[in-house]
Amino acid sequence: MRGILTCELKLRVRELENELIKSKQKQSDAEHHLRPKIVKMSAEVVDSNPYSRLMALKRMGIVQDYEKIRSYAVAVVGVGGVGSVTAEMLTRCGIGKLLLFDYDKVELANMNRLFFQPHQAGLSKVEAAEHTLRNINPDVAFETHNYNITTMDNFTHFMDRISHGGLEEGKPVDLVLSCVDNFEARMAINTACNELAQIWMESGVSENAVSGHIQLIIPGETACFACAPPLVVAANIDEKTLKRDGVCAASLPTTMGVVAGLLVQNVLKYLLGFGTVSYYLGYNAMQDFFPSMAMKANPQCDDRHCRRQQDEYKKKEAERPKQEAVQEEEEEVVHEDNEWGIELVSEVSEAELKDASGPVPDLPEGITVAYTIPEKDGGSGETVEETDQSLEELMAQMKKM
Amino acid sequence: MRGILTCELKLRVRELENELIKSKQKQSDAEHHLRPKIVKMSAEVVDSNPYSRLMALKRMGIVQDYEKIRSYAVAVVGVGGVGSVTAEMLTRCGIGKLLLFDYDKVELANMNRLFFQPHQAGLSKVEAAEHTLRNINPDVAFETHNYNITTMDNFTHFMDRISHGGLEEGKPVDLVLSCVDNFEARMAINTACNELAQIWMESGVSENAVSGHIQLIIPGETACFACAPPLVVAANIDEKTLKRDGVCAASLPTTMGVVAGLLVQNVLKYLLGFGTVSYYLGYNAMQDFFPSMAMKANPQCDDRHCRRQQDEYKKKEAERPKQEAVQEEEEEVVHEDNEWGIELVSEVSEAELKDASGPVPDLPEGITVAYTIPEKDGGSGETVEETDQSLEELMAQMKKM
Repeated sequence: MRGILTCELKLRVRELENELIKSKQKQSDAEHHLRPKIVKMSAEVVDSNPYSRLMALKRMGIVQDYEKIRSYAVAVVGVGGVGSVTAEMLTRCGIGKLLLFDYDKVELANMNRLFFQPHQAGLSKVEAAEHTLRNINPDVAFETHNYNITTMDNFTHFMDRISHGGLEEGKPVDLVLSCVDNFEARMAINTACNELAQIWMESGVSENAVSGHIQLIIPGETACFACAPPLVVAANIDEKTLKRDGVCAASLPTTMGVVAGLLVQNVLKYLLGFGTVSYYLGYNAMQDFFPSMAMKANPQCDDRHCRRQQDEYKKKEAERPKQEAVQEEEEEVVHEDNEWGIELVSEVSEAELKDASGPVPDLPEGITVAYTIPEKDGGSGETVEETDQSLEELMAQMKKM
Repeated sequence: MRGILTCELKLRVRELENELIKSKQKQSDAEHHLRPKIVKMSAEVVDSNPYSRLMALKRMGIVQDYEKIRSYAVAVVGVGGVGSVTAEMLTRCGIGKLLLFDYDKVELANMNRLFFQPHQAGLSKVEAAEHTLRNINPDVAFETHNYNITTMDNFTHFMDRISHGGLEEGKPVDLVLSCVDNFEARMAINTACNELAQIWMESGVSENAVSGHIQLIIPGETACFACAPPLVVAANIDEKTLKRDGVCAASLPTTMGVVAGLLVQNVLKYLLGFGTVSYYLGYNAMQDFFPSMAMKANPQCDDRHCRRQQDEYKKKEAERPKQEAVQEEEEEVVHEDNEWGIELVSEVSEAELKDASGPVPDLPEGITVAYTIPEKDGGSGETVEETDQSLEELMAQMKKM
């Protein structure tokens, strides 16, 4: 009897061991189903090639050298409704390196926006994001920082990573994307980028969830966040402060998805050199209206680094021989042949603008505006005219309407 | 010795059994981490409420009755780059019911667009999508059909589900969204919706990945897909045919994300009655340009059901007392006080248009066009004018430029 029992027990042990191995394997498959890394992007049209649809951009005549995307490092500050989708798009496009900064945790209250899933509630946003993104594309290098960039120590570390955390350690990143939800964090990014002469893009979504914008900032050249804050930004108050009073901003996956899409499209155009890179592009969801404009840096800007970069830019512009300047323009795409005057095409009423953006920004002197006054019945054929009026004059006019 | 061995084996068995239970539990947690269903949407601002940011749309004065979203059923035909994100956005918004139609499988070649993940390769798109979406929001009812709607039997079944698969079985769905990648499937949806007088929205992305559009179609009232195909559509050839020749269309997560965002935003505006619902909205990523227009149904349309719906619409319009008509307009939002003439604002060149859309569509007679001719240097202040020219005349003019 004893012999039979031992035999049965031994069989059972073997059986259980096998089951356990299978169970763990299944778990590991689900959790870490990483495809092998791909050394060289290929344009081959086979179902197993995750880059075929991107490499086809070359054959279509849109992008000259798509593989170049692998040589770039992009920092995404804020991994919320806009930042997480931004990071996912860049990951799927095969960006070389992503640096993610956020100090928040995933909550069920975030589930009305894309990307995060309920089972990630409680995890830090950067940790949850890295896990998902690495699964999607193991070819991308990730670096995550679970901290608030606005505190003194973290800000110093943030500056250091922006200037040394490029694809090749020690080199600066190629672009910083601001996807934060409050004024303080935007100002911190602005300060860092002005000091480092780091090109960056701003993004934002209004508190009422139905408008947003993206903006390209080239220190010394275009208006920085301190020169003239964007016309449509989220409230100058962060989520945590709002929530304490039992109030929260509204948000929609649609608006945030559109803003992330426009932002990353602008990033691709900027990095890969195709199409026209937008300086400022707004999105008004109520009327499907997309205002655009460009603003030059404000010589009276409060930020001394911005003023220093303006001097540097002027010097460089003055030194540059005319011919070389023309060549540069063609290469960099972002340099457009325009006077840097504001051009603003808008159908938003002043009241709507105010709701969405808080106080009307104090714009630098000498800015000219082109503005659309919509027909009341939503009729056809709005005319867009250039005027020499300042934004203040225009606002005053609109108030009278 | 035997006794000790038996004892050890028994201990080992217990140990392994425990480990196996834990392993299976962990697996099950990861796979089926469904949050409990939520019976009533609440506006309470707590981290655990997935609807707080959506219900805040009421407090912000954007939407009168957000909970109404739970009473609607939407069919999504095509669960690819646009359809999957469309389904995810509607799921996160808490739509009542989603019906998904697709016959394709997930491939690694789809990983350059949002939503699907590498470990889902090989699964049917509708099965993989339902699994992910149910995890994100178990409050939504899902119905999936893994078939090609263009074959005879499937088309009959598709018609039946559109007309009986509403939130309450037996009632029609509230909206059909076309997110397919070929002409044949678009025509099938068009035929079904004309016959059933089913309101639907069209979407599409160009083969070169840098433009797209959405369009609202109200049978009998606005132009159907047979009246005048949209100006920017994907090639009239499906992916499978293309791939056979070792060629594939380019695609970008950015363009598809933007198109899905604009589509679902239009759906929300239509279903929940806020903002202005767009009849046609285009997206040109190269220049960040967003043409819009509206087109009335073509009395000479090839589709006899379209012509029948036009007669019905005319009858209804004639019967309706003037006052009631005004009231309806306010309620339904989609009725805009305009003449249904085309208004088209575009910066795309004819060559670009042709690349993106295949042959120039044959437009019905008597359509008036407002068109922008951009300044060559991308300068400021384009003027938009109404003209009495037909699209054909306009195209001829542009050819000469």
